[in-house]
Amino acid sequence: MTSTTSGASALPENSTAGASSTATRQDGRAVNELRPISITRGWSRQAEGSALIEFGNTRVLCTASFTQGVPRWLKGEGTGWVTAEYAMLPRATNTRSQRESVKGKIGGRTHEISRLIGRSLRAIIDLKALGENTIVLDCDVLEADGGTRTASVTGAYVALAEAIAWAKGQGVISASAQPLKDSVAAVSVGIIDGVPMLDLPYVEDVRAETDMNVVVTGSGDFVEVQGTAEGAPFNRSELDSLLDLAVAGSAELATIQRETLAGER
Amino acid sequence: MTSTTSGASALPENSTAGASSTATRQDGRAVNELRPISITRGWSRQAEGSALIEFGNTRVLCTASFTQGVPRWLKGEGTGWVTAEYAMLPRATNTRSQRESVKGKIGGRTHEISRLIGRSLRAIIDLKALGENTIVLDCDVLEADGGTRTASVTGAYVALAEAIAWAKGQGVISASAQPLKDSVAAVSVGIIDGVPMLDLPYVEDVRAETDMNVVVTGSGDFVEVQGTAEGAPFNRSELDSLLDLAVAGSAELATIQRETLAGER
Amino acid sequence: MTSTTSGASALPENSTAGASSTATRQDGRAVNELRPISITRGWSRQAEGSALIEFGNTRVLCTASFTQGVPRWLKGEGTGWVTAEYAMLPRATNTRSQRESVKGKIGGRTHEISRLIGRSLRAIIDLKALGENTIVLDCDVLEADGGTRTASVTGAYVALAEAIAWAKGQGVISASAQPLKDSVAAVSVGIIDGVPMLDLPYVEDVRAETDMNVVVTGSGDFVEVQGTAEGAPFNRSELDSLLDLAVAGSAELATIQRETLAGER
Amino acid sequence: MTSTTSGASALPENSTAGASSTATRQDGRAVNELRPISITRGWSRQAEGSALIEFGNTRVLCTASFTQGVPRWLKGEGTGWVTAEYAMLPRATNTRSQRESVKGKIGGRTHEISRLIGRSLRAIIDLKALGENTIVLDCDVLEADGGTRTASVTGAYVALAEAIAWAKGQGVISASAQPLKDSVAAVSVGIIDGVPMLDLPYVEDVRAETDMNVVVTGSGDFVEVQGTAEGAPFNRSELDSLLDLAVAGSAELATIQRETLAGER
Amino acid sequence: MTSTTSGASALPENSTAGASSTATRQDGRAVNELRPISITRGWSRQAEGSALIEFGNTRVLCTASFTQGVPRWLKGEGTGWVTAEYAMLPRATNTRSQRESVKGKIGGRTHEISRLIGRSLRAIIDLKALGENTIVLDCDVLEADGGTRTASVTGAYVALAEAIAWAKGQGVISASAQPLKDSVAAVSVGIIDGVPMLDLPYVEDVRAETDMNVVVTGSGDFVEVQGTAEGAPFNRSELDSLLDLAVAGSAELATIQRETLAGER
Amino acid sequence: MTSTTSGASALPENSTAGASSTATRQDGRAVNELRPISITRGWSRQAEGSALIEFGNTRVLCTASFTQGVPRWLKGEGTGWVTAEYAMLPRATNTRSQRESVKGKIGGRTHEISRLIGRSLRAIIDLKALGENTIVLDCDVLEADGGTRTASVTGAYVALAEAIAWAKGQGVISASAQPLKDSVAAVSVGIIDGVPMLDLPYVEDVRAETDMNVVVTGSGDFVEVQGTAEGAPFNRSELDSLLDLAVAGSAELATIQRETLAGER
Repeated sequence: MTSTTSGASALPENSTAGASSTATRQDGRAVNELRPISITRGWSRQAEGSALIEFGNTRVLCTASFTQGVPRWLKGEGTGWVTAEYAMLPRATNTRSQRESVKGKIGGRTHEISRLIGRSLRAIIDLKALGENTIVLDCDVLEADGGTRTASVTGAYVALAEAIAWAKGQGVISASAQPLKDSVAAVSVGIIDGVPMLDLPYVEDVRAETDMNVVVTGSGDFVEVQGTAEGAPFNRSELDSLLDLAVAGSAELATIQRETLAGER
Repeated sequence: MTSTTSGASALPENSTAGASSTATRQDGRAVNELRPISITRGWSRQAEGSALIEFGNTRVLCTASFTQGVPRWLKGEGTGWVTAEYAMLPRATNTRSQRESVKGKIGGRTHEISRLIGRSLRAIIDLKALGENTIVLDCDVLEADGGTRTASVTGAYVALAEAIAWAKGQGVISASAQPLKDSVAAVSVGIIDGVPMLDLPYVEDVRAETDMNVVVTGSGDFVEVQGTAEGAPFNRSELDSLLDLAVAGSAELATIQRETLAGER
Repeated sequence: MTSTTSGASALPENSTAGASSTATRQDGRAVNELRPISITRGWSRQAEGSALIEFGNTRVLCTASFTQGVPRWLKGEGTGWVTAEYAMLPRATNTRSQRESVKGKIGGRTHEISRLIGRSLRAIIDLKALGENTIVLDCDVLEADGGTRTASVTGAYVALAEAIAWAKGQGVISASAQPLKDSVAAVSVGIIDGVPMLDLPYVEDVRAETDMNVVVTGSGDFVEVQGTAEGAPFNRSELDSLLDLAVAGSAELATIQRETLAGER
Repeated sequence: MTSTTSGASALPENSTAGASSTATRQDGRAVNELRPISITRGWSRQAEGSALIEFGNTRVLCTASFTQGVPRWLKGEGTGWVTAEYAMLPRATNTRSQRESVKGKIGGRTHEISRLIGRSLRAIIDLKALGENTIVLDCDVLEADGGTRTASVTGAYVALAEAIAWAKGQGVISASAQPLKDSVAAVSVGIIDGVPMLDLPYVEDVRAETDMNVVVTGSGDFVEVQGTAEGAPFNRSELDSLLDLAVAGSAELATIQRETLAGER
Repeated sequence: MTSTTSGASALPENSTAGASSTATRQDGRAVNELRPISITRGWSRQAEGSALIEFGNTRVLCTASFTQGVPRWLKGEGTGWVTAEYAMLPRATNTRSQRESVKGKIGGRTHEISRLIGRSLRAIIDLKALGENTIVLDCDVLEADGGTRTASVTGAYVALAEAIAWAKGQGVISASAQPLKDSVAAVSVGIIDGVPMLDLPYVEDVRAETDMNVVVTGSGDFVEVQGTAEGAPFNRSELDSLLDLAVAGSAELATIQRETLAGER
Repeated sequence: MTSTTSGASALPENSTAGASSTATRQDGRAVNELRPISITRGWSRQAEGSALIEFGNTRVLCTASFTQGVPRWLKGEGTGWVTAEYAMLPRATNTRSQRESVKGKIGGRTHEISRLIGRSLRAIIDLKALGENTIVLDCDVLEADGGTRTASVTGAYVALAEAIAWAKGQGVISASAQPLKDSVAAVSVGIIDGVPMLDLPYVEDVRAETDMNVVVTGSGDFVEVQGTAEGAPFNRSELDSLLDLAVAGSAELATIQRETLAGER
């Protein structure tokens, strides 16, 4: 099932971004408005869980591979493991990049994002309740237009939830186990020409003075806050505005995730 | 535009496979029948050419990246270059494989298939007419159910044709140039329990005594013939039957390619 | 010259951490108190700039290598380049780790920290004023007891400032150029048993529910905010407390940096 | 013992190549004539089996290393394993190539040929009869003048047969076991200026419009057929002529293999 | 504790170097005089043994990591293992070198020196008396001004001795065991403008016609003699002079090692 | 042409090894006697210079590749370059080793020996007289029975001399140029059961307490002396005996080299 939002903002009128919410964005969105979001669950016929997620023109295929057993360093601890790998197809972007397999090594950016996704999912999983099982999330960017890491976290959660449902269905984990403590979603925010904005596509991302990725649970707490001054350093008040936008945007994503998972596979 | 065939065989009744065409296959096809084929051209919004091709449950994303200029060793020769890279997503298959980027090296099978795709496309391209331009075809297998290399060749041709049309539209190559001398498609054939069959899915592929991949031009000549005895060696008559099946299947694929390219992007 | 702080807190009594500032830490510090900090500038006789920085038992050697010219992709832009590489000696930690040179690849954590240091320094540098020159900061951890990335940023700034002074002394950049727009320092903060604390040593770091690294300019603005829930997600009020602690701690570090650079090499 | 053929064709006068057998080749051979072939068995004093094979100026050292036990994934299956690795010395060719060990990775061509040799030998071996033992064939090209992969297959069979005889002599496999089901040899064929020819040296290979490598058992069945259009695609009739030449050439090679193995080590 | 020598030669007046001992060296030393030597033991708070050793401006941090157990290939032999790894920080030298971890491979020089250090230490250790324990020596050059490999051997011995004392203190090896059969030290010698000289700094090293590294036990026997003609080949009499200088210099180093180890950690 | 020595010692009766020259060696040689030496020059039809050298059962193929031009860092210096690469075939030894190309990296031993061969040849070459040309020596061990590095140096000299003669014949370097200042050869010596011996095969090498490789010019001076105590350290008198043996053995090798080069290619 595919859930989508047509891009109409679900945010209250008196949203944090205030006056600036009237700023014009190239794609016509309000500053506190997400791009059209689409999540197609069960996209892959091979994986135990999967989701094709789209944030505007950004398209990421997320699969969850469930295997019994854990890495050697965890054996006998009575606990499971969840990890993630992120990658981009060579022509996901406007110009072709060399494959990391051809270069023979993985770049720093890829490493960084893979680690972020893994940490984000582990934050809402009860590894004890998972039992000695491993779930690997693969997030492969098919098309990139900004926000690939936040789309990856958001889609990977859906694939993860599918894989856990699958494992319960198979009796590999008990039907009463609750490995998922919460949901998790992520969104990017940034300051462009002094205006805080939600969910940046590539054209905005490259112009942003400050760029922040925020990972938020379904209940509204923070899992990750990663803010970077690309241009001028930012002050506390700007930081607060960005956090407000991110929290509201994440809540919308949590709703879409919930609806997607409520639909049929 | 997406062209599909519903899997009804376009082959003449008195096809080469004779009596054996009544053999029962697990998916109900006749021995000389292709799986349902679907080609969606223009699937990627980033690449100069692209096609999502499906042979049954096998799904490959093919993109063509057009760049002006050629590799250093070709500079000043007045000729272009076409090359290809093939890869599988880690969870394209039934169990997850480690990424080649993580292993730090590309395996023999990947190398072999990338080279096959490149050679197949160069066989139908007039590199002089292409001018000093380079086209890189990326074939990334999203889901694998047998025949990924032949689906890659067949889809890559559509992406290549799109990229050349794009270059003409941009005026990068002259409108009167004819870089495409012919079309090219590929299909697998094999002998299972002594019966030659067309277009093997994974369950048949692993049981095949002989496995052959054949690359054929739109006008019916051979570009590659790669037959391998996985079990018992094969004789001349078996080889002939396999070639007959492959030539007929390739002709069907050529028709679908033509229809796809005749449709809108 | 070596500047040190004996660990007595320079923070006002009515500091942000409030009641919790009376919490007992294993090393006897107040929650808003830095470990003893020592910066020895000019430690290396080979590099254009260098500093041996100590945050308690964490010891990092930072060198700045100044070279004329820039990487190829920047040539002719009239702008300089600053980048950083971070690494740990194999026995910097309590048990020996395998060298990344022996493994043949750099791990994700190393990549991530190297990129953080580079971004932090570029945030306070005017690359135009640097001219077409490159400065590479190497931060090699000789002993690790928590906070190696924040010590690296803090020490690298001193090495960078030395290298710029050297270049002015050599006439490689004009005496009136102002490549340094500000200073920059970093510190870790975290929540342990529900209490926000400043500058975590290893024993606290492994127990922290939330771990945050904050990079702050001499004038008090943010360059990076990287907060991660290692255990339970954190709420907005906890985030605010952590930011308060980090801003105050960074101001202390900025003072020590200033004093160090005011002393003799 | 070394067996050689002086290059006089053993083919019947009314051979497939017909009129074209009168075509002039640069080295004076008839189109259906092999280059002088020499196989020196037992060349290495270290390996359980070995052969130095020469096809004209192409010289390949083939060794067979016999070890008890099998790779982990085969343990307990009661079956053996045979695999191969191919490589070229850096100055086997007219100009020096960089070593793959120095590059740090194995190229696609090397991988492809290693896999071909391994498959070819496994086609004529009864892995059950081999027991849980492993034989690794190493084919190192000392001098290259076309046809190195086919010379490798042909020589590797002799080394393999020696190693099996050695293992029987040692009592490691029972004297009554028959691991060798047949012999196997390989030869290249190609079309040059429209004329199908047997066993191409380098000067012919680079000019060939179509290049085919054929692996044939001693009893005349096919193990591999790999035909590639380097220039124009080829039709069914050309394919048939090439196969005729290859089958006849392989029969000659099988005779030389038999004579070599009948001689003393 | 740090032991140093102020550089005044402890060699007898009638030393081997004869008349040439009056030759002027750039740093004012006699030809048979060591640079100022300093060894600070226990420099690292993490390692079981450590020493920061300085030969003039050359500074090497040596750590010894003691672990119970041995590599797989030694298991059950009742014997221990000692090995070493050498590396240079990127800015140890006058211009920055690329990290070997970034290059993805270890260079020949690094390999060669690591092996030399390991062999030198194993020459004076009784591996049986060490029991099934492993000691890894890491020698990281913080600053390089010639003689880094000889300083590494000399410092690594001190770290090794500390680690063995630690293991005895912990009861991991019996207090009566004598794993150290002797001490070991190393020094470089060379011929510059025809004059044999002891302990070459970088400026002399690059000018030397012959360069020799000599590893000598505390009792005066040779462990390694590695002499290389960088310019003209050397004759037997020159070789003898170099050996005389090295033996005398090593004896001085052995004294400093002994004094260092007699002091407090 | 192939020059060989039947193993009869050319050494004077009153040789250095004294009484011990009567010691019995497993292969019946006197302690000061070389194994049978054979050098076949011009073994490769592809390389500008080549030699297949045998020291008993050790067999090394040495090729010299002459190319015009020099590496970038030497351009415009008016000087040439000579370098070497050493490698072993996987089954050169008694048990098969994994290929370094498959491992993806070159081991320390390979690096060390390649560097030794290169230095040894550069010691007798006048790089100015070579002009801006490069010669790469490849020494590939086909069979290994001890002494592979010394056989490589000795054979590489012959290949180098051939390549220089070839270049003069081609007019690439002037007929009057004298790039070869001397010849160079190498031999191993060692102490076994207290007895110094010349030219150790594998069975002696593994038992040697001290192992030394000595590279000597045709005029009897030293290029390299590399002595290593594998067991007990060695004293000055033992060192002297080993050097005596090596100098005498090298003189014999120089004679064989001279005779080989005087013969026809």
